[in-house]
Amino acid sequence: MRVLGIDPGLRTLGWGVIDVDGSRISHVANGHCVSEGKVLSLRLLALHSQLTDVLMRYQPDQAAVEQTFVNKDGAGTLKLGQARGIAMLVPAQYGIDVGEYFPNTIKKTVVGVGHADKSQVQHMVKMQLPGVTFAGADAADALAIAICHAHHARAPGLRVRA
Amino acid sequence: MRVLGIDPGLRTLGWGVIDVDGSRISHVANGHCVSEGKVLSLRLLALHSQLTDVLMRYQPDQAAVEQTFVNKDGAGTLKLGQARGIAMLVPAQYGIDVGEYFPNTIKKTVVGVGHADKSQVQHMVKMQLPGVTFAGADAADALAIAICHAHHARAPGLRVRA
Repeated sequence: MRVLGIDPGLRTLGWGVIDVDGSRISHVANGHCVSEGKVLSLRLLALHSQLTDVLMRYQPDQAAVEQTFVNKDGAGTLKLGQARGIAMLVPAQYGIDVGEYFPNTIKKTVVGVGHADKSQVQHMVKMQLPGVTFAGADAADALAIAICHAHHARAPGLRVRA
Repeated sequence: MRVLGIDPGLRTLGWGVIDVDGSRISHVANGHCVSEGKVLSLRLLALHSQLTDVLMRYQPDQAAVEQTFVNKDGAGTLKLGQARGIAMLVPAQYGIDVGEYFPNTIKKTVVGVGHADKSQVQHMVKMQLPGVTFAGADAADALAIAICHAHHARAPGLRVRA
């Protein structure tokens, strides 16, 4: 099973692909989609186009996206939501299931504790995917999301949705 | 010029189409896209598919979307943002410009005051589009957004983006 993890963002949308074979996981690729400029609709179109390319290139069987919002910042949450809408739409357009996980679930699955910091998460992702090089922090997060999904796909009770 | 107004929402996404000829506007159609169920990615896919049908059927030249977020409700704003991402993506996929307007700008343009209530907005939309029947409150809002865009497209300085 091949899993695409997505860390949504309007400026930088991280992605990571892993292969899952029973309890073994291995790294396939990671990177990020970017959008710039003042025209929101064109930025969303750019993310849609780049993420579609990732789907077509790596042909994942399942996808997973982080479930989060920015507390007390409506404008920031709206921006994130718009990017997240694209992140969830693209796999759905290819008939691929999209798991959703809260940040604490991802950290708890990858590191063992729900309040791990970013460097701990990256360290554990490297441990589980030997030799991996991160295209950036968002791509590392996306790999953590994919690893989280790989674990929960084997025990789906903990996913936000079944 | 044909304008598509969109009032984004995850459960109900209102849309309204008007024709603009100089200072004259006329009603073309209004309605709503709906999504239900627990699987967010499939709901976004449903909105994308229905809104694409509207674009293909009515062939608008420009589009406009309300610019809003839910204060103090991160989860609600995230949901809205996801639907809004789809609302902005679909016109962009057809090469159509998407104007963004704050609720107060829409009310001020349509009613004359920024803090008008919904019934006042609907009344003024009916005055400007004689004989119109609203498919629902979201569709009426979408027509108000389209009317707002028609006015500001003639005086673009007041738009969120040029």
